[in-house]
Amino acid sequence: MYGFEPLETPAVENIETLLGKYGEEGNQLIFKILKRGEHEASGQADLALRYDLTVPLARVIAHHHAKLPRLFKRYQIQPVWRADRPARGRFREFYQCDVDAIGSQSPAVEVELCCAVTEVLLELGFKKFFVRLNHRMLLAGFLEKAGIPANLHGEALVAIDKLAKIGAAGVRQELLDRLIPAESADEILSFFTQLRSTYTDLDDFDAQYPDRQLPLDRLRELNLALYAHAAAFTMSNAVGGAGLDGLRTILEWSRQTRATEHLLLDFSLARGLSYYTGAIMEITVPDLAGSLGGGGRYDNLVGMFSGQDVPACGFSLGLERILVVMGERGMFPPSLARAAADVMVAVFDPADLSHAMVFAGTMRAEGLRVLVYPDPDKIGKQIKYADSLGVPFVALLGSNEIQAGTVTVKDLAAQTQQTLHQPAAGAQIRQALEVLKDRG
Amino acid sequence: MYGFEPLETPAVENIETLLGKYGEEGNQLIFKILKRGEHEASGQADLALRYDLTVPLARVIAHHHAKLPRLFKRYQIQPVWRADRPARGRFREFYQCDVDAIGSQSPAVEVELCCAVTEVLLELGFKKFFVRLNHRMLLAGFLEKAGIPANLHGEALVAIDKLAKIGAAGVRQELLDRLIPAESADEILSFFTQLRSTYTDLDDFDAQYPDRQLPLDRLRELNLALYAHAAAFTMSNAVGGAGLDGLRTILEWSRQTRATEHLLLDFSLARGLSYYTGAIMEITVPDLAGSLGGGGRYDNLVGMFSGQDVPACGFSLGLERILVVMGERGMFPPSLARAAADVMVAVFDPADLSHAMVFAGTMRAEGLRVLVYPDPDKIGKQIKYADSLGVPFVALLGSNEIQAGTVTVKDLAAQTQQTLHQPAAGAQIRQALEVLKDRG
Repeated sequence: MYGFEPLETPAVENIETLLGKYGEEGNQLIFKILKRGEHEASGQADLALRYDLTVPLARVIAHHHAKLPRLFKRYQIQPVWRADRPARGRFREFYQCDVDAIGSQSPAVEVELCCAVTEVLLELGFKKFFVRLNHRMLLAGFLEKAGIPANLHGEALVAIDKLAKIGAAGVRQELLDRLIPAESADEILSFFTQLRSTYTDLDDFDAQYPDRQLPLDRLRELNLALYAHAAAFTMSNAVGGAGLDGLRTILEWSRQTRATEHLLLDFSLARGLSYYTGAIMEITVPDLAGSLGGGGRYDNLVGMFSGQDVPACGFSLGLERILVVMGERGMFPPSLARAAADVMVAVFDPADLSHAMVFAGTMRAEGLRVLVYPDPDKIGKQIKYADSLGVPFVALLGSNEIQAGTVTVKDLAAQTQQTLHQPAAGAQIRQALEVLKDRG
Repeated sequence: MYGFEPLETPAVENIETLLGKYGEEGNQLIFKILKRGEHEASGQADLALRYDLTVPLARVIAHHHAKLPRLFKRYQIQPVWRADRPARGRFREFYQCDVDAIGSQSPAVEVELCCAVTEVLLELGFKKFFVRLNHRMLLAGFLEKAGIPANLHGEALVAIDKLAKIGAAGVRQELLDRLIPAESADEILSFFTQLRSTYTDLDDFDAQYPDRQLPLDRLRELNLALYAHAAAFTMSNAVGGAGLDGLRTILEWSRQTRATEHLLLDFSLARGLSYYTGAIMEITVPDLAGSLGGGGRYDNLVGMFSGQDVPACGFSLGLERILVVMGERGMFPPSLARAAADVMVAVFDPADLSHAMVFAGTMRAEGLRVLVYPDPDKIGKQIKYADSLGVPFVALLGSNEIQAGTVTVKDLAAQTQQTLHQPAAGAQIRQALEVLKDRG
C-alpha cells in the first residue's frame, strides 16, 4: 500500500560483508560456511549466513546504486540466522519482514515506516502496542552532556540499556566497570531515574488495562513531558538538540495518521545494532519481554561498502515473535484452521482408482481441493482417515455408482449422505461448503 | 487442489543427515557450516545447508512418524543450496517446489503427482513438455540381463546417462573404464541404440513443431513400441518385469487425466540422486538442456533415519529454471509488470508533507497503493521520478489545493490533469485505473 517493491537477496553473503556490522555480540552469532573443495581442509570460512536483511540490502544498494531509482523503497520477507540460544519466540532461523526506504533524509520516511508497521499490526488484530521512539543523536547528546567521552558512548549505552532489568545500582556498577567516570555515571543515571518517574502514569495504566491503548491525549501529554525533560537536560547541546528536533518532526507529522496513537518517546531505547545514525524505533506489547520488531535510520551503512554515503531508514518485524503472541492470545482467524482438502474420494476396489482420479479431476475443475485415497483399505478406515484430517466430505465410488454415473457423498459432520450425479457433484459440494463456511 | 498440506523445514540440517544421501558428487556440493564459539578454531563442520527438500522431509517423517497421519501429503517451496558452478538456469541458491505423498505404495500416488505437476505447467502457460518416465527396477533388470553385476549398476548408469551427450562409442569406453565387462557393455549399448531408433518419429516432430505437443495417438504408439522393446529385452527377468508392470499401471491409470498427453517412457533416464527405488520422472522442454524438475519413488529413505521403512514418492520443480524459460519465451502475464504504486503524492513545500501523508492514508483506505515523495525537489523532478517507476498518476498538493480541499491529479500517460475534491480523489483514481487495466 506504500509503494514498496519486493526484493530477495541470497541467504549466503561473503563473510567480510557481515563481520563488523552488528557489534561484538553479533559477530559471534554469525553462522560461518567452510570453504569448499581443496580448501575445505584449511578449516577457514569465506561465506556466512544472512544475519539480518539490512546489511545485505545496503550491500545491494552500494553495488547497484547507479541503476537504482533515486528513491528506492523495498520490502523483503526472508529468513535470517543467528547462533543464539533458542528461547520462547527466539529461534536460530527466523523470518524478518522488512520495509526500507533508501535515498531520502526526510523524516517523512520515518513517519511512513511507522504508519506502515502500525497498520500491519492493527490488521493482524493487535490493539495495544507502542512504537517506542528515540534518536541516536539525542543519546549522544545525553552522554556528551554527562561528560562521557565519545569513545565510551557505546560502552555506556550497553549499560544503560539494562536499566529496567538490573536497576540503577546495577547499571552504576556496570558503568564504572566500563571505565565511565563516577561523576558522569551519576549524572546520566540521575537523568534516567528522573525520567523513569514520568512513566508512572503509563505503568499504572498498563497494569490496569493490559488490552487497551493509552488514550491519545494522555499519550501526548506523556510524550510532551518526556520531551521537556530531555530538552532541559541537553539544553545548548548541538547534537542532542538536532536529535530532539528530529523526534519532534516525526511526532508532529504523524499527528493525523494511525501511527500517532502508538508513538511513545523512550530515551532509554538504544538498539544493539551498531549501524544506526538517527531515529530508532522498537515495537513492544505488554507481556512480552523483548520486541516484535524495530528499526531506524542508518545513513552511513551503504557508504561502508561503496565509500559513498546514501541516506536510508528501515523497519523490521520479527515474524515468529508475532506468531507466538498471536497464538498465545488466540488471534488467528478460524479460516486458517481449515483442512487441506474439501473432499476425499474413496473406492472399494483398487481397480476403480483410475476412475476415482478422473472424477477427482472434474471436481478440481470446479475449484474443489480433492484428496484421492490411494490404497485398498476398508471403507470405514478410509472415512476415519478423512475425518481425522478434518476433510468435511467423502465421495464414495462403488461399482454400482460407477455403472450408474453417480457418487455417494457423505457429510462427515452431519453424518448424512446422498447420491449425486457425478457431473453435478462438484458444484453441489461447493455449495454445501459455502453453507458450512457461513455457519462458521 | 490435490490436498497437499504446507510444510517448512529449517535451512540448516545436521551434517550427518545430508552426507551419503546424494551420491559422491552430491556430497562434494554440500555447503558445510563451521562449529561455533570455542569449537570454531577446530575448523570442523557440524551443520550443513539443505541440498534438496526430500531428505529433510524424510528426516521429519522419521522423527514424527507416530504423530503424522497414515497418508501424509505435503508441499514445500523453499530454497536449497549447492556449491555448483553457476550457469544459465543453474544457481548456487535456488527454490525447489516439491509435492510428496508419504505412506502409500499405490501407483495412484505417481499418477496424481504427474497430474499435479502437469496442471501447474499448463497453468503457467507451458504447452509442449514431456514428463519422462522410467523405473529403477526396470533399469536394474536391463543391467542384470546384460550380465552386469549388481555392485556395478551405479557405475553403469552414470555412463549410460551420457548416451545423448557423448554417443555410443564414448559410452562404451566409459563403461570399460568403469570395469564393466566388454560383452555386457556391448549388449546394453545395443539395446539402447536400438531403442534410440524408436524415438526417430519424436525427433522429427520436435524439429518440425517446437511448440506443439505430439498428437496423443502418436505418443501412445511410441510408448507402446518402447514398452514392447523393453519387455522383449528383459523377458523373464523378475526385477525388470516388476518395473515394467509399475510403468504400465502408471500409464494406464493416467489415460483419462491431463497427464496422459505428456507422459513419455524414457529408459535412458537414470536421475542422479541415489535414494530412488521405483518409478522416476523428469520434465523436459525443447530448447533447454537439463530438466524443469523431476522426482520418483524413494521407499527406503525414511528407513535410513528411523530403521522403519515408509513408502514415499515425490516430485520437485526447479523454480528458477522455469522462470528462465518463461522469461526467454515472454510467457509472463503483463499484469506482473505493473508499477509498485498506483499514485504518487507530490508537494511543493516540505511543510505540506504531513498533509500529504494524511491524504495518502485516505487513498490507501480506498485500496490504492500510494507513494509519498518525501523530499522538497522541484515538481518536474518529482513527476519524472514517478514516470520512471511507471506510476500512472501523480497527485499534486499545492497550498491553493490544500486550502480548497482539492488536489490536482495528473495522468502521466495521457498527459492530462484535472482538479478533484480530496475525499473523492481515491475512488476516482481507482476507476481510472480500472479503465487503464481493461485497455491492457
